[in-house]
Amino acid sequence: MHIPLTPIRCLYRGVDLYARKTAIVSGDNRFTYAEFGERCERLAAGLLAAGIQPGDRVAYLSFNNNQLLEGYYGAPLARAIVMPLNVRLTPAELTCIINHAEPRILIYETDFAPLADHLRAACPSVERFIAIGPEYEALLAAGRIARPDIRSFDESAICELFYTSGSTGTPKGVMLSHRTLYLHCFAVAATYTYSDSAVELHTIPLFHANGWGRPQSCAFIGLKQVMVRRFDPSHVLRLIQEEKCTGMSLVPTMANALLNCPDLGKFDTSSMREIVLGGAASSPELIARLEQAFHCNAAAGYGLTETSPVATGARTKSTIAYASDEDRLARLASTGWPLPGCEVRVVDPHMHDVPRDMQSVGEIVIRGDLVMDGYFKEPKATEAVMSDGWFHTGDMAVWDEETYLQIVDRKKDIIISGGENISSIEVERAIFAHPAVLECAVVSSPDPQWGEVPAAFVVLKPGHELSEKQLCEFLQGRIARFKMPRCFQFSELPLPKTGTGKIIKRQLREGLWVGKDLRIQG
Amino acid sequence: MHIPLTPIRCLYRGVDLYARKTAIVSGDNRFTYAEFGERCERLAAGLLAAGIQPGDRVAYLSFNNNQLLEGYYGAPLARAIVMPLNVRLTPAELTCIINHAEPRILIYETDFAPLADHLRAACPSVERFIAIGPEYEALLAAGRIARPDIRSFDESAICELFYTSGSTGTPKGVMLSHRTLYLHCFAVAATYTYSDSAVELHTIPLFHANGWGRPQSCAFIGLKQVMVRRFDPSHVLRLIQEEKCTGMSLVPTMANALLNCPDLGKFDTSSMREIVLGGAASSPELIARLEQAFHCNAAAGYGLTETSPVATGARTKSTIAYASDEDRLARLASTGWPLPGCEVRVVDPHMHDVPRDMQSVGEIVIRGDLVMDGYFKEPKATEAVMSDGWFHTGDMAVWDEETYLQIVDRKKDIIISGGENISSIEVERAIFAHPAVLECAVVSSPDPQWGEVPAAFVVLKPGHELSEKQLCEFLQGRIARFKMPRCFQFSELPLPKTGTGKIIKRQLREGLWVGKDLRIQG
Repeated sequence: MHIPLTPIRCLYRGVDLYARKTAIVSGDNRFTYAEFGERCERLAAGLLAAGIQPGDRVAYLSFNNNQLLEGYYGAPLARAIVMPLNVRLTPAELTCIINHAEPRILIYETDFAPLADHLRAACPSVERFIAIGPEYEALLAAGRIARPDIRSFDESAICELFYTSGSTGTPKGVMLSHRTLYLHCFAVAATYTYSDSAVELHTIPLFHANGWGRPQSCAFIGLKQVMVRRFDPSHVLRLIQEEKCTGMSLVPTMANALLNCPDLGKFDTSSMREIVLGGAASSPELIARLEQAFHCNAAAGYGLTETSPVATGARTKSTIAYASDEDRLARLASTGWPLPGCEVRVVDPHMHDVPRDMQSVGEIVIRGDLVMDGYFKEPKATEAVMSDGWFHTGDMAVWDEETYLQIVDRKKDIIISGGENISSIEVERAIFAHPAVLECAVVSSPDPQWGEVPAAFVVLKPGHELSEKQLCEFLQGRIARFKMPRCFQFSELPLPKTGTGKIIKRQLREGLWVGKDLRIQG
Repeated sequence: MHIPLTPIRCLYRGVDLYARKTAIVSGDNRFTYAEFGERCERLAAGLLAAGIQPGDRVAYLSFNNNQLLEGYYGAPLARAIVMPLNVRLTPAELTCIINHAEPRILIYETDFAPLADHLRAACPSVERFIAIGPEYEALLAAGRIARPDIRSFDESAICELFYTSGSTGTPKGVMLSHRTLYLHCFAVAATYTYSDSAVELHTIPLFHANGWGRPQSCAFIGLKQVMVRRFDPSHVLRLIQEEKCTGMSLVPTMANALLNCPDLGKFDTSSMREIVLGGAASSPELIARLEQAFHCNAAAGYGLTETSPVATGARTKSTIAYASDEDRLARLASTGWPLPGCEVRVVDPHMHDVPRDMQSVGEIVIRGDLVMDGYFKEPKATEAVMSDGWFHTGDMAVWDEETYLQIVDRKKDIIISGGENISSIEVERAIFAHPAVLECAVVSSPDPQWGEVPAAFVVLKPGHELSEKQLCEFLQGRIARFKMPRCFQFSELPLPKTGTGKIIKRQLREGLWVGKDLRIQG
C-alpha cells in the first residue's frame, strides 16, 4: 500500500493518538494536539482563502512560537511551501532572498513591523503581509479545512524552503520534499527519542535548517513541545524546571551561556535526559561540563541545511569500547556516525574512500533520504554539489573503521560563528565594494565566546587610505551584524597565493589559530 | 534526493557500520556482518547464474538458520522474490501453494529431502532444488556479485511473498514490496530497539509473516542475531544465557513452554530486556509470569501477514496512568496501539468509527506503509479486503480514546492454535470431502496448551455411519496435523442457521467457551 510520506502524517499522528495531551507551550499559550491540529487546519483555510495555490511560498519572519510551528503544517496542508526566514539577516539580504523565492504571503511577528514595511516596498511578489496577533487570529477564525485525504499529497513535492549561505556567498534555497522531511524526522525520532513521555525544549530557531528536524519528530511521537522564543539562559533554565523538559539541542555558544549563567544552580533541571550539540565545533570539555551540570547524556551531531539537517550523531556505538574517560568525551564531542537512512563517506577528489586511519583527510559526501532535492531555481548550483548521487558537503574530515567522523577543516571556508553560517566570500564581496580595497580575504579566527569570528586581511590600493573604523561604517547595512569581521589586518604586501592566483586562506588562518585547539566541528 | 526504500539498505547498513561485529549465530555458524553480506552477495550470484530473472520466486523449506536469512537478502539482491514456505503444511498444501506461486528454485534443508522429492514430481515450475549443505555451499562458492547501486532498485517491486490461510480457506500469497518492508522495519526498530547493543533471539520461524519484521530491523540497527532453529524451551534458555540475548518474540504457547520448562531456573537469563507476545491471545497472567521469570518488560502486539506484520503494540503510553497493577497487566496483554507509520480504526460496516467506549464492537481496519500491495495473482481477493484505501483485517475489536484496541472476536472465524492460523473453512472442506458427511462446521475450542484448537460439528447423511477414528484417518494427508480437529460432535439434528442459511458458528462456539475466559487476542 502506497501512502505518501509527508510530515502532515506527523501532525495527524499527534492529533489521533494524543488529542488531549499538551502539544505546544509557547509563552502563555498552551494547546493540546487536537487544538493545535485545528489551528493548523484553520491556517490552511486562511491561506487558501487568500488565494494560495499549490507550490506557492509562504514566508515567515518570526522567532520560535506556536504560530511559526503552525506554519510548518498549515502551509503544506494548503499545498504550499513554508519558508521561514532568518530574522538576523539585513533588510538587503532578506530582500534578495524574498525576490528570489517570490513568496506570495509573509507572516511576521510585530517586532519586525518596521522590517516588514521595508520589504513591502522592496518585494513586489508578496501580495499580503500578515502580522501575528489579531490579524493572524482573524485569518484563523474565518474557517477550517476538512481533514484532507492523506493519499492526495504528492510526496515528491517541495514542502519547505530554507535559504542558506552555502559556499558561494549567494544565499541558496534548499528544497526539502515531503518525503525527505518524513524520513528525516523518522530517523531523528528513532535515534533520539526513547519514550513518548519526553518533553522537548525548542531552543534552536525553527528558521534554522528545519529546527533540526525536532518539530516534526516531536509531533510524530506525541511529545510536549516547549518553545523558546529567543534564547535567554535564565529563561531556558526556568522553562526546564517548569515544564520538566527532558531534551534540547544547543549550539556550543548556547551551551556556554547556560553553563556560565549565574542562575544555573537556582533551577531544578533534573528532568533533563539528552542534550544534542551541533551547528558548530564542540569540545570534550564542553561535553564534560554539560554532563556535570545537567547529569544527563550530551553528544555532538552534524549536518547541513541540505541534509534536513541531522546526518550524524556522536552517540555511543556498541562496537566501540572507550579507552578512557578522555577517549569517551572526545568521541562524544566528535562528528559521530550516520543516522538510519543516511550513508556517509569520506572521499578524495576522485570519489575514492580515503583510508580509515583518522589521518587521511577527505571530503564528507552524503547519500540518503535526508538529502535535499536541490537549490530552488539553481540547477547549476545543485549539479555542482552532487556527483554520482552523492551530496558534497564541502566539509573535510578524517574517519575510522567504525565510520566515526571527525571534521578537521572546511573546504568551503565557511565561518561558523555562534551557530550561524557566515560565507567568507560574501563578506569579502562587501569589503571589495569599497573603492580603496585592492585585495582581501576573510577567514575564521578563534573566539572564546562565538567559537569563530570572521577576520579580514585587507590590502589597499596604492595611494589610498582607509581606517578600520571607516571600513566598519561602510560595511554596516551591507552585511548583518553577526557577519562583521571582528579584526582587520591591513597589509601593504600582497596576500599569499597559489600558482593559479588563488589566495591561500589556509596560511592566513593558520597564523590566527597557532597555539589554539585544532578546530573540530561536532 | 530519492533513494529507493528497500531492505537491501538494512543489510548494507549492517555491513557498513558493523563489518566486524558478529551478525549471525546459527548453530555452530558465526558470521560477522561483512561475512554475512558476502554470503548474501554470493547467493545472489548463484541465483543469477542459475538463470533467475527479475521478479522470479525463490522458495525455501527451512527452519531458522543463516541460510534462510541469507535468502532474505540474496534473492532480492538478484532482483528475485523470496518466498519462505511454512514447513508444517502437508505435501498437498505445499503443492497447491507452489503451483500457484510458481517459484523456479526451491532451497531446502535436508530434513525435508523426502518432501522435496515429492514436490519435484508435483511442481513443474521448480527447475532446480538446492539442498542446504554442500550443494548450497557450492552455489555460493561459484561467485559473488559486486555491490549493486542502491538506486537501481525499484522500491515498489515485490520483495517477499508469504502464503497465509486468510479467511477463505484458500492460501493466498501476501505480496510485500521493498518499500513496505523497509518502512515496516524502520517502525519496528524505532518502537522496540533502544540500543545497538541489543541481542535478538529469533524464536519466531522466519517463514511466519516475515519473521515479525525482526530480521531486517536487526540488520538495520546492527544487532547480533541468534537463530533458534526449532523451538525447544531448554535450548532457548541456554541460548539466552550463552549469547546474552536481550530480546525475543513469542507466541503464547512458546511463552508457556518456557515458563513451565524445568530448566528455567538453571540458566542465567538476566540479560533479557524485552519480550513481545503476539500471534495469538495473550493474558494478564501470562504477562505477569513473564515479568516475574525474566525480570524484564513484556507486552503483547498484533498484526497480520498482510501488515508485514506488526501493526500495534501494547507498550506503555505516556497519556495512560494505570489505575492498578491489574489494569497495567490488562493493558500490556491487550491488542495495543499503532506503530509509527500505521493508522488503525475500529469501524462499523459503513466505515464509520464505532464509539471509543470499550463496548461497541467494530472491525479493525488499517492503513499505512506496512500494508501489503495485495494477494499474488488474486486481484479480486485483494479488492475484497480493501475499501477506500483501508485494509480490512476481519478482526473485531473495541477501542478507547487512547486508540488502545482490544480484539474480542474474529469476523473470519480463523482458529489460532499455538500461533498457527487455521482456516475453519479449509478444515470443513476436508471433512465435507467424506461421502458420509451432510453438514459440518469447525470452530475454535479452548485448549490449555494451544490456546485454541479446532472442534468439528458433523451431521451425517441419513443412513450413513462414520466413527471419529474413521474420519480422522480420512483427514490425515488432506490437512496438516496441527489443523486436525481435537474433538468431534456428531449430531442427527441440523446445525443452527441464519435466515439466509448460514451456519451460526458463534452459537456453536459459545457452547464450547461457556465458563472460559473471554477470548482476547493480544
